Amino acid sequence: MTKPQNFHPSHIVVDWGTTSLRAFLISPDGTIGDRMESERGIQFIADDAYEAELTTAISGWIDTYGILPILALGMVTSRNGWVEVPYVSCPATPADLAKGIVSRHLTNGCPVLLLPGITDPARTPFPDVMRGEETQIVGFGLDKDICVVLPGTHSKWARIGDGRIQGFQTFVTGEIFALLSKHSFIAKAAGDETGAMDWAAFDRGAEQAGRALPETDALLSLLFSARTGILAGQMAATETRDYISGLLIGHEFRQADLCGWIDRQAEIGGEIGIVGNDGLNDRYERVARSLNLTVRKGREEAAIDGALAIASHRKSKITHAA
Amino acid sequence: MTKPQNFHPSHIVVDWGTTSLRAFLISPDGTIGDRMESERGIQFIADDAYEAELTTAISGWIDTYGILPILALGMVTSRNGWVEVPYVSCPATPADLAKGIVSRHLTNGCPVLLLPGITDPARTPFPDVMRGEETQIVGFGLDKDICVVLPGTHSKWARIGDGRIQGFQTFVTGEIFALLSKHSFIAKAAGDETGAMDWAAFDRGAEQAGRALPETDALLSLLFSARTGILAGQMAATETRDYISGLLIGHEFRQADLCGWIDRQAEIGGEIGIVGNDGLNDRYERVARSLNLTVRKGREEAAIDGALAIASHRKSKITHAA
Repeated sequence: MTKPQNFHPSHIVVDWGTTSLRAFLISPDGTIGDRMESERGIQFIADDAYEAELTTAISGWIDTYGILPILALGMVTSRNGWVEVPYVSCPATPADLAKGIVSRHLTNGCPVLLLPGITDPARTPFPDVMRGEETQIVGFGLDKDICVVLPGTHSKWARIGDGRIQGFQTFVTGEIFALLSKHSFIAKAAGDETGAMDWAAFDRGAEQAGRALPETDALLSLLFSARTGILAGQMAATETRDYISGLLIGHEFRQADLCGWIDRQAEIGGEIGIVGNDGLNDRYERVARSLNLTVRKGREEAAIDGALAIASHRKSKITHAA
Repeated sequence: MTKPQNFHPSHIVVDWGTTSLRAFLISPDGTIGDRMESERGIQFIADDAYEAELTTAISGWIDTYGILPILALGMVTSRNGWVEVPYVSCPATPADLAKGIVSRHLTNGCPVLLLPGITDPARTPFPDVMRGEETQIVGFGLDKDICVVLPGTHSKWARIGDGRIQGFQTFVTGEIFALLSKHSFIAKAAGDETGAMDWAAFDRGAEQAGRALPETDALLSLLFSARTGILAGQMAATETRDYISGLLIGHEFRQADLCGWIDRQAEIGGEIGIVGNDGLNDRYERVARSLNLTVRKGREEAAIDGALAIASHRKSKITHAA
């Protein structure tokens, strides 16, 4: 690569998930000097091939800048990934997360710090889990008492406050939407995806899902409205996909609210954080605003800030111990 | 075909759905003299090929017994089927359904009576619909005030009483289960289907879904327990499929209850009818019994009794008018 002037990298941050690998060349203040992305998610990597895969992915940067510490997060630290890093339990501070880091070295000499995911033992019926989103949340900032949602295949609702991630809950909204739009009878009517978002259809779905009636709270029943709306001549078949997206995200907000995640202040609404890079933030923001919530947006690459913040706690700890 | 002794057919009943065609040679009391089934569901039939398809399917019976009236029900009467028969509105008696019949003749001389589906205009957000299940419900019998569930891809909960189908609601439970078990990340852990039902895993799912907590009522969240249970060491991966089946059917019962379908008599439980032939009745019966409900089972081929009952109203009406 060409060396940009006045850019002095201190770290490489690697967000390695199930379906993709994304890496960033970072200066100490979190500025991105360069980035790469590939579809080499962990589902495609053999158990003994992680080191070689990572070494190859970042070789251009190492050739140019020499050895750099690598901060790795996401499903690469799971049981199905490179190194299984035990979950840190909520409530968790960045210092708690730093204590959970597991380190390795690549053969090129780069140290790799594998950042832990977190678990919330308070959830029912089993402790909930995340890997990667906790680092985005730390990057968003823990200085305010607020609920943060991270939209995604498995979206996460988290409570932060008192400098900690207090707890969280997963909703598999994105996965159900993908299943319905790709494989279902219900959405068969929709035809092929055109790429243009039909916000009116989306809003209509979100509004139906938020009506607080037993019938509309019954998601398995509400989903059938994507068919009955067409049969009743109330909806066009082409609206189906975005209507279902609205139904599901609206339902997620309604259920998250019933589970106590959303701060409600009767007259003035409340506030919610939205963090993520799955291309869904606009949809979540739209539903939040329709519920009279003020939205505080995280930066798209919040994971970078979070990874640096967590790593800094580890560094200082080592220094103090020395 | 060989003519069975002492069997005198009066009708052919054809249940022609999206994925299959089933036909029955019937005597006046509903006894089945012969039956055939093929995978020639309406999704595979061209618009101008229905008559030929049906004529071929029943030709053996016509050759043996001569011309017989055909009673046809199911998605064959839908917009995507042979003849679109308008829905009859709830509350509906068998006589109301008979008035909605549309008739045709095959070129071999057989009259075809196409039985209507029904709609419930009281449902939210759009009127609900069924085609075929209403005939099963009539066959089950309308002489008792009871809630009847018809398990299936799109299962139906109906209220009968006063000799009428009073109303109903659809839950797309079977479709969501099929999507999750065939295509999802969540159920990927389950591996291939073995065929043996794990009732303990099913019961566990149904029990979790019935707990009446905001977290377990949030289906999009509850589904993630199929993964977290494994990560927590509380469940084996092989339990996933039947656990999810239990979660979904348990959730369906819980939501149907919240929507007011289930009769609850505090101390003594209540009663529920289960009708259908989708191979799911055992699962629904198990959940019903776990909720202390008495189960009244319909016969598997309730649609035959229903079709004869509805057709008999048409006949008497014509006679009276003559």
